[in-house]
Amino acid sequence: MPNSDRISKPTSRRMSLYLRALQLQLNQGKAAISSKELGDQTGVKDAQVRKDLACFGSLGRPGVGYRIGDLHHQLRRLLGMDQTWKTVLVGAGNIGRALLAYPRFRNEGFDFVAAFDHNKKDVGKKIAGLCIQPMEELKKTVKQKHAQMGLIAVPPDAANKVAQSLVSAGVRGILNFAPIRLDLPKGIAVVNVDFTDALEQLAFEIRLSITEGKSV
Amino acid sequence: MPNSDRISKPTSRRMSLYLRALQLQLNQGKAAISSKELGDQTGVKDAQVRKDLACFGSLGRPGVGYRIGDLHHQLRRLLGMDQTWKTVLVGAGNIGRALLAYPRFRNEGFDFVAAFDHNKKDVGKKIAGLCIQPMEELKKTVKQKHAQMGLIAVPPDAANKVAQSLVSAGVRGILNFAPIRLDLPKGIAVVNVDFTDALEQLAFEIRLSITEGKSV
Repeated sequence: MPNSDRISKPTSRRMSLYLRALQLQLNQGKAAISSKELGDQTGVKDAQVRKDLACFGSLGRPGVGYRIGDLHHQLRRLLGMDQTWKTVLVGAGNIGRALLAYPRFRNEGFDFVAAFDHNKKDVGKKIAGLCIQPMEELKKTVKQKHAQMGLIAVPPDAANKVAQSLVSAGVRGILNFAPIRLDLPKGIAVVNVDFTDALEQLAFEIRLSITEGKSV
Repeated sequence: MPNSDRISKPTSRRMSLYLRALQLQLNQGKAAISSKELGDQTGVKDAQVRKDLACFGSLGRPGVGYRIGDLHHQLRRLLGMDQTWKTVLVGAGNIGRALLAYPRFRNEGFDFVAAFDHNKKDVGKKIAGLCIQPMEELKKTVKQKHAQMGLIAVPPDAANKVAQSLVSAGVRGILNFAPIRLDLPKGIAVVNVDFTDALEQLAFEIRLSITEGKSV
């Protein structure tokens, strides 16, 4: 079993992709998968797949492939998916509601234990089984429920204050949807999701594909 | 001016971050920025900033920094932001509505020209100034408006059919929010946004920070 602290971010992203593909195979009742199949399903070169998975030792056999059940188990451990992550949502606008209702979170070990909004007219409403609470209850609830993760889906000018409240209440990591860089103490993990980044990336790749098309 | 086809995806993602930071500086009326400042604002090491921006030639001067206006202009060109990208949305659920209302898209050159949903009760409703159209009008409208990008925010079992319709109507790239790998012809750009990936990444980083904390 490799140490998670020796694995780079791009590698851990590929590990996520492998885990997703293996889950699909398990659901279909398959027992083994080759590096080529796994590569085809995730868009990764099969040489890279073999290199990434070499750290797990002898889970793969030439001509047979990886044992899906074992590899799935090891990847879940590596990625921290063998535990349930208690998660709170702050901001119950469109993005927040979409996240609460996202069906795969619970299957993947992410358990929403509370949701908050500053908007009085949303407080008390039920979304995906959770009752929206007022912001004043955030710190107390996060502590009581021992939440480890916070999802921030509030406007940018409110995001840093929310982040500070979450951290002071004991949250260890933040998934940030607000288009602003959060100012967090050392040791607090953060992953930013910025839709503008994704669109810029797409614009760049379209340019790329047009350039490549011309040069062929 | 570097060729966009010689730049890797991670580099182009950093370029996006630089562009965002430079925009903020421009808004504040600043004229120059050092690689260290730019690194601090984007979370990139200053040596990496200098390496990434070296391709633009003599925009930086030791002791003074980069000329923000020039660098901003060059980065916009490189990332394909010096043009307007006509974009359509398919799927007007929570995520779709959040995307339509995302205020920064228009500023960054992404112009929503149409939105579609299969749900009859949503058709005709106005969101962020756009009237939701039925799916039957997708191909015709995309062609008429010369849309180049499609945002897919439909359930996974509908995503591939939508993608095929978009591509056959002339779209060059797809931003995919459906948690499924799209089967697209060569030459069509795709960027996937998967919230489960982001949460798994966060779980992994929390584990990492706990491990690092222990080893100090």
